[in-house]
Amino acid sequence: MQRNLFITFEGGEGAGKTSVLKAIGERLKEKQIDALLTREPGGIEIAEKIRAVILDPAHTEMHERTEALLYAAARSQHFYEKILPALDKGKHVLCDRFIDSSLAYQGYAREIGVNEVLAINEFAIGKRLPDVTIFFNISPEKGLARIHSTRIDELNRLDIESLAFHKKVYEGYEDAMRRYPERFKIINADQELEQVIEDVWMILNPLLG
Amino acid sequence: MQRNLFITFEGGEGAGKTSVLKAIGERLKEKQIDALLTREPGGIEIAEKIRAVILDPAHTEMHERTEALLYAAARSQHFYEKILPALDKGKHVLCDRFIDSSLAYQGYAREIGVNEVLAINEFAIGKRLPDVTIFFNISPEKGLARIHSTRIDELNRLDIESLAFHKKVYEGYEDAMRRYPERFKIINADQELEQVIEDVWMILNPLLG
Repeated sequence: MQRNLFITFEGGEGAGKTSVLKAIGERLKEKQIDALLTREPGGIEIAEKIRAVILDPAHTEMHERTEALLYAAARSQHFYEKILPALDKGKHVLCDRFIDSSLAYQGYAREIGVNEVLAINEFAIGKRLPDVTIFFNISPEKGLARIHSTRIDELNRLDIESLAFHKKVYEGYEDAMRRYPERFKIINADQELEQVIEDVWMILNPLLG
Repeated sequence: MQRNLFITFEGGEGAGKTSVLKAIGERLKEKQIDALLTREPGGIEIAEKIRAVILDPAHTEMHERTEALLYAAARSQHFYEKILPALDKGKHVLCDRFIDSSLAYQGYAREIGVNEVLAINEFAIGKRLPDVTIFFNISPEKGLARIHSTRIDELNRLDIESLAFHKKVYEGYEDAMRRYPERFKIINADQELEQVIEDVWMILNPLLG
């Protein structure tokens, strides 16, 4: 008997996480493996309301620490109301973005501090970290080019600040992978989608089987 | 030249904090001492919206960790948008309840853990703790009797759970005072209001003058 697992998908924008998660979900369904696929705020009413406060365009003056605490609060409710009950029922849970996104984006790229952002997120989830995290590896330049549907050699026409931030997010993920070498599995996301799906399946199939 | 101070008022319910703060504010105005009197969420739009999520009666299933993070988020915005700018302008700030309320109520009485609740609240305010905290000392029994406007010997008719919780909050404050013996000033709140105001004024007048 294999135990059920809590798996997260991480990476910068344009890495294909969401499409791959959907495809993996279909394969699990075909194999009749019971799994919950989710992403924050995950249809959880309290988490949705917290997200609405974060994303309200009237809130231009929200402090970065307030924002980080609100993301952690939404994560906490989603975790305790949806993820943990599914795990307790013996289901696998696959979540699109989780704690490492906060470490990379807020802790590292926004420079709040990785240790500090980790502390509030550990609080949010009672230190129950994912068992396995798939990192979708693609260079910041290529990821950004994908979002903008353009060629890499045209990236100089894109917002330079945007690329600089994308690079910092990537470094933030590198930092997270150094902290958690056991938990992270790195896949090459700079391939055709079908191949990325295949590579992720090669990792997950034996674990979830 | 005395520097401007960040002062908080703490204590269980029925201790008279709010009435005393108002009276102290009037005395400061008479002496033309520039001070901001506030309490969370302090009219700060983002903090008010966060409070509305916490207090929404539809949210019976809010996890205690989510709630603690939301209180910390509202505190953060109130602190950075209202308290810190006032301190930076050289004003004294007097705040009715602050970080110690979370330590006593959520960390200790609700048993989330004082160290953990302290960590997220230190994050919320960038570790800028109050300079002075006035603790309004009154026994849990007497404080509870005051709220219910009844005699102490009739307390057995009140909700036992309520008194037990009140006692735990009191122990939570005792724990906070052991952590921060320098910051806390304890006043006897089991006196006539005028005398409590006088005692608080005796502490604050030399500091704020």
